[in-house]
Amino acid sequence: MSKIEPRNLKGFRDYAPPEQLARQAMFSKIQSVFERFGFLPLSTPVLEYAEVLMGKSGEEADKLSYRFKDNGDRDVAMRYDLTVPLARFVAQNQGRLTYPFKRYQIAPVWRGENTQRGRLREFYQCDIDIVGTNSLIADAEIIACICSVFDALDIKNYLVRLNNRQNFEGFKFKQIETIRTIDKTDKIGIDGVIAELNNLELPAEQIEQVRSLLQQGDEAKPDQRSKAIIDTSIGLGVNPNQIIFDPTIARGLDYYTSTVFEVILKNNPEFGSILGGGRYDKLVDTFSDKPLPAVGGSIGIDRLFEALESMGNLPTALGVEVVVLNLGESMRAETLRVVSEMREEGINVDLYYEEAKLDKQFKYAENKGARLAVIIGEEEKAKGTVKVKNLQTREQIEVLETELLAAVKSI
Amino acid sequence: MSKIEPRNLKGFRDYAPPEQLARQAMFSKIQSVFERFGFLPLSTPVLEYAEVLMGKSGEEADKLSYRFKDNGDRDVAMRYDLTVPLARFVAQNQGRLTYPFKRYQIAPVWRGENTQRGRLREFYQCDIDIVGTNSLIADAEIIACICSVFDALDIKNYLVRLNNRQNFEGFKFKQIETIRTIDKTDKIGIDGVIAELNNLELPAEQIEQVRSLLQQGDEAKPDQRSKAIIDTSIGLGVNPNQIIFDPTIARGLDYYTSTVFEVILKNNPEFGSILGGGRYDKLVDTFSDKPLPAVGGSIGIDRLFEALESMGNLPTALGVEVVVLNLGESMRAETLRVVSEMREEGINVDLYYEEAKLDKQFKYAENKGARLAVIIGEEEKAKGTVKVKNLQTREQIEVLETELLAAVKSI
Repeated sequence: MSKIEPRNLKGFRDYAPPEQLARQAMFSKIQSVFERFGFLPLSTPVLEYAEVLMGKSGEEADKLSYRFKDNGDRDVAMRYDLTVPLARFVAQNQGRLTYPFKRYQIAPVWRGENTQRGRLREFYQCDIDIVGTNSLIADAEIIACICSVFDALDIKNYLVRLNNRQNFEGFKFKQIETIRTIDKTDKIGIDGVIAELNNLELPAEQIEQVRSLLQQGDEAKPDQRSKAIIDTSIGLGVNPNQIIFDPTIARGLDYYTSTVFEVILKNNPEFGSILGGGRYDKLVDTFSDKPLPAVGGSIGIDRLFEALESMGNLPTALGVEVVVLNLGESMRAETLRVVSEMREEGINVDLYYEEAKLDKQFKYAENKGARLAVIIGEEEKAKGTVKVKNLQTREQIEVLETELLAAVKSI
Repeated sequence: MSKIEPRNLKGFRDYAPPEQLARQAMFSKIQSVFERFGFLPLSTPVLEYAEVLMGKSGEEADKLSYRFKDNGDRDVAMRYDLTVPLARFVAQNQGRLTYPFKRYQIAPVWRGENTQRGRLREFYQCDIDIVGTNSLIADAEIIACICSVFDALDIKNYLVRLNNRQNFEGFKFKQIETIRTIDKTDKIGIDGVIAELNNLELPAEQIEQVRSLLQQGDEAKPDQRSKAIIDTSIGLGVNPNQIIFDPTIARGLDYYTSTVFEVILKNNPEFGSILGGGRYDKLVDTFSDKPLPAVGGSIGIDRLFEALESMGNLPTALGVEVVVLNLGESMRAETLRVVSEMREEGINVDLYYEEAKLDKQFKYAENKGARLAVIIGEEEKAKGTVKVKNLQTREQIEVLETELLAAVKSI
């Protein structure tokens, strides 16, 4: 039979054990913070009717979607983000939910991005949203919660940049294109934005309005709602030095209606905006007659992971703690008993299955990241003892089998 | 703008907060057991090249797969199970892995099943596998680990039924069809199996062989390898009353080569086989020249969840513990401070955003499943106190704000 080449699709990747263990530890920390802020988990399907997803996030989003006909000839698509499926869920279950509806979701999304820019086509998003209230306390909660996530991950140098899309309302001509262009200020600078706006053939007056808005810099005075959100966020624990009003923040997605924000790492601008969000008061309306205003934030988990990695801040997970070596058939009963006793005490224990040379078995234990190796040979069996080797210090002790659990915990 | 009907695809469903919280608690318990047995997490993509997935699990699997052309005209498919992607991963990373390679993965898979039978088209699998060893200790580890999962979830009445596909080797004629038919013994009985085999036009002699094999029942004598696996499993902590040799176990997937097993709930046969697995020594070979024998097991997490629900055994999760009520603008600073103090202590706290009637706010707290509501009004503010109401007992106490944390923990 001819072999099939084992390979991934472009833009798709595996996460092998050591990395995936750290990712899961990061997810689990984030999840605890979300729950601390009163968010509860929701899970929605990967596939939706295409009409549910299309036309919400913008033309670019529609173009990048994985959309196809299923075996029943339905027009379906893989989710592009977690926000549109949330809006669909809320509209569909309107009468059954408690409002404001606060949910979190940590799950992959799919976008057929150009992989030359190093972008993945399958990546995780990590979202919190509050649906069913106009209260600006909700906007502040989203921001405070996200800051707590950064605190929990020991990231110190982050900055929340907040704006309100209504500050762009004066831009009557090609408004959404103007907003999308302003959103590029960080990447292409004020001059770059002005050049692109000229290409859009905007009226000179509007271009001048944009220029003076962008040039305000740190002197910019927040609108009333943005100021109240900043103050409330600080009341909820956000460090006043880590949140600013920034008139250049616009966000790329079409559905935002007022509050918009991003978080950057001040010392690591190369990671760009690793988090963004805002208020989208009209999105649920596309599915329902009842208006349900909403606000949310989404963490780009892959960039966050890269950032943590580069800072040497990756959350650690136990993984395998002890490997019990295999000294052959005659030791089998003792070996299995010792393995299962340690597991019953909640210790993460692996054992070597084959009868290989000890060198090879020690190597296996080290590769699995174990802290200790346990050895039970003929001699030890006769004395009722076991040997415990610390794989970092290379120290080895011999203890009675009855004292093994205590020894494992103390070494 | 015309409204879009908010709906799910047939066979796809949402998991709303109370249920998803319990599911996550179940996943997390299972994950701990897997790690206790030395398995580490691997994550593979949802989409693969179709040629990677097709022709491994059987015709039925290929027919039910979600397969389509992506925007780059690649022939792709959503994963049908977690085993074939594992085989692809191992073949692709052969030289970089530590063997035996032990991994777990808890993730959704997609099958275009007939939804009339109540089957979902998107459902979770929860797999452990050991790749790169022939040792029967590995087969026993998979079984012992899975039994520990049941123990950790407080399921008492499970039974592991073990067989070896090599016991079917005498069936030379239409072997795979014969095996698939034997696999239906539980559903259609021995007479049903014989009738189907007659329809397959097998030689009378082979049909008689099958009949006498199936009729052995509890008297069946295990082959040597099955017996050793059962003994080793018991050595690793499996209860001897919860594992039997059963010559009717065959499993439906094509790739199994020797060991096959299933787990049923003795008192709840309606849930069918909620777990299955076996040895598949040739699967990795389809991608690679190096033989890498493997064994694994897969839990049908949705059936398991249903079973736990029907037993009243669902794992509990904290969710929201406290809701702080909103008594208006003038109490804002105190309210935010109290909320953020409790969160800093790791308590899951929600607050009510709008200035609604207290009745409505208490209702919200109850709907969110909170244990306590905290109230700070003008009077309490003046005295430096807060009120704490137990939502189950309806008892209410008033404590100094400085004593709130202690009160929350003790009530």
